[in-house]
Amino acid sequence: MTGTAPAPFTADDYRTRMDRAARQAAGAGLAGLLVAPGPDLVWLTGYTPTAATERLTLLVLAPGREPVLVVPTLEAPDAERAPGAPAITLRDWTDGRDPYALTAALLDTDGLPPGPPGAPGALLGISDNAWAMHLLGLQKALPGTSYASLTEALPMLRAVKDTAELELMAAAGAAADAAFEEIRKVPFAGRRETDVAADLAALLRRTGHSQVDFTIVASGPNGANPHHENGDRVIERGDMVVLDFGGLKDGYGSDTSRTVHVGEPTDEERRVHDLVREAQEAGFRAVRPGAACQDVDRAARAVITDAGYGEYFIHRTGHGIGVTTHEPPYMIEGEEQPLVPGMCFSVEPGVYLPGRFGVRIEDIVTVTEDGGRRLNNTVREMVTVD
Amino acid sequence: MTGTAPAPFTADDYRTRMDRAARQAAGAGLAGLLVAPGPDLVWLTGYTPTAATERLTLLVLAPGREPVLVVPTLEAPDAERAPGAPAITLRDWTDGRDPYALTAALLDTDGLPPGPPGAPGALLGISDNAWAMHLLGLQKALPGTSYASLTEALPMLRAVKDTAELELMAAAGAAADAAFEEIRKVPFAGRRETDVAADLAALLRRTGHSQVDFTIVASGPNGANPHHENGDRVIERGDMVVLDFGGLKDGYGSDTSRTVHVGEPTDEERRVHDLVREAQEAGFRAVRPGAACQDVDRAARAVITDAGYGEYFIHRTGHGIGVTTHEPPYMIEGEEQPLVPGMCFSVEPGVYLPGRFGVRIEDIVTVTEDGGRRLNNTVREMVTVD
Repeated sequence: MTGTAPAPFTADDYRTRMDRAARQAAGAGLAGLLVAPGPDLVWLTGYTPTAATERLTLLVLAPGREPVLVVPTLEAPDAERAPGAPAITLRDWTDGRDPYALTAALLDTDGLPPGPPGAPGALLGISDNAWAMHLLGLQKALPGTSYASLTEALPMLRAVKDTAELELMAAAGAAADAAFEEIRKVPFAGRRETDVAADLAALLRRTGHSQVDFTIVASGPNGANPHHENGDRVIERGDMVVLDFGGLKDGYGSDTSRTVHVGEPTDEERRVHDLVREAQEAGFRAVRPGAACQDVDRAARAVITDAGYGEYFIHRTGHGIGVTTHEPPYMIEGEEQPLVPGMCFSVEPGVYLPGRFGVRIEDIVTVTEDGGRRLNNTVREMVTVD
Repeated sequence: MTGTAPAPFTADDYRTRMDRAARQAAGAGLAGLLVAPGPDLVWLTGYTPTAATERLTLLVLAPGREPVLVVPTLEAPDAERAPGAPAITLRDWTDGRDPYALTAALLDTDGLPPGPPGAPGALLGISDNAWAMHLLGLQKALPGTSYASLTEALPMLRAVKDTAELELMAAAGAAADAAFEEIRKVPFAGRRETDVAADLAALLRRTGHSQVDFTIVASGPNGANPHHENGDRVIERGDMVVLDFGGLKDGYGSDTSRTVHVGEPTDEERRVHDLVREAQEAGFRAVRPGAACQDVDRAARAVITDAGYGEYFIHRTGHGIGVTTHEPPYMIEGEEQPLVPGMCFSVEPGVYLPGRFGVRIEDIVTVTEDGGRRLNNTVREMVTVD
């Protein structure tokens, strides 16, 4: 996976984010944050290593200390060019040295505040996607500490977007809408799913996406598998086709689903599509500051359950999106996190009838001061394609 | 990152690999192996999820038990189509359930053999690149266990290739050689590094690579940074240019470096290039069954050090390659792992003169019964380009 540093942000922006993250960490009882290459590091520093490798790269944030990036010597020149680099001290290490001991020395856990009751020593937050081998190395080098994943410890670290970020999110959504408006016009019948998926990927790139994460084209019975991988199935007249596509544009994500029909739908197909559209609308209407994430799921699910299709809605209603296309907060039963203005997430109920067809409708929604705003605005009524 | 399951392998091949891995685990004192999406899972099962996500997918191997794949319900249909699936029991879990408890129940650690002295309870091996959040979840669900990364616990799990794998490795190397023979012919002077890199990527794809991992084009002073990211620098007459390129062809890796010159090199440039070529040859000649990995590094490094350039050779001499382009064993001082026929790795010494130029020459080499065999065979003498 590669990422592009969002263009409009300066070293000062990254310094602000790192300061805020360190303060949030302190507020959550964390003695520090250990940030691995990936979305957290991109968001905090603008830095994306060429590849995640077995060589440790780790941003160390601790309240009241300067940010330090532990980086392989080989990659230090690239790290120095990251937009956030002026706000960070680089500590490079060469092959053969122990990067975990280096990190441990930086943390100087004797001076760190103790963790919460029951935790053995200081509690450190670590990126969800840090490699297990690196966590094991740190656990060995810092035996008096315990760890929590950033999603568990600071789930909302990147969740609330500022104005500049919201503009980028809206632009990504508009680009995805434009791609949908174009894909409606291409021929579906007689072509393979992979062919339409390739068209969709090209459209996403043409509308400004630098990275295409997924272009699901799930036709006929394949639509009943929410994570269908495109295959050689030839799309036929009479198929429902679930389209679910997204990626990154200028460093921020899009993720949109629409379900189209090749030719005229049956009454049942119309009914299920209307039902999912109604559920999506109900989920959207549940979005407002202070509502819990699970309220969005409940609102959408109630519509589908009341219509007797509850057992065919087999996934959560949504997920957060930002510098990745898939992140907290999650719109799922049990998630009591309150919605906060600036959060962005998908609202994407679906109905999946095994062996027959599926329907999913998905918009990205952001929380406003008095409700929600859709960042996807292309037609949600079922459209027919050729 | 996506991968393609190597085409020629059957469910029986994957069953054999999983059996062997479980036996090796037992021999290494491990009570089980926890294999996350990525190269280990591809190699053991042929399965690559659409994307590594926060949803746990984990292959659980334990000596004397049937392999079980813990997989999100959403992704179960795709997992069932993996070539190794007939040899595996799938255990799917839906959003909202606790996949760590499910995994813990599978392991039934009361019945597992105890770990080595000093380890708290059974020792489990886990993929290097498993997400830290998943390791933390498992540590919590299985408090009586300890963990080691697979690279630490079973570093040679995938290192020794069988005959079918060696054929695929040789084909990937030959394809990379063919790409180099073509890139020699394109114009360099007056074009940006990124332009030549794009040509190189296209050539790798044309020669059969389904995935291009890197196409480094490091010209002039940029060549002194071994991990240079291609930029807008316009290549000039008189530049040395380090080319380092590779990816996956039919599921197996290539990784080749050659250093070319735009026009006529100076005496010093020739001398340094000859020196690196001699070091590469010395490293290759050190390859034989029973030699230690560090012997390959020492042999190559001695040539460069003896010539007074030791401080400018700032990385290890090589790394293993297989279903990834970067894996154990590592040719580095301190690595005493003996070489075994069927291992494949790079031999890639370099000299990097800061602010001036760099030279690196790299072949993939496999260990044979009586020495080594190069899987790259294109010209190593310095070639000039236009």
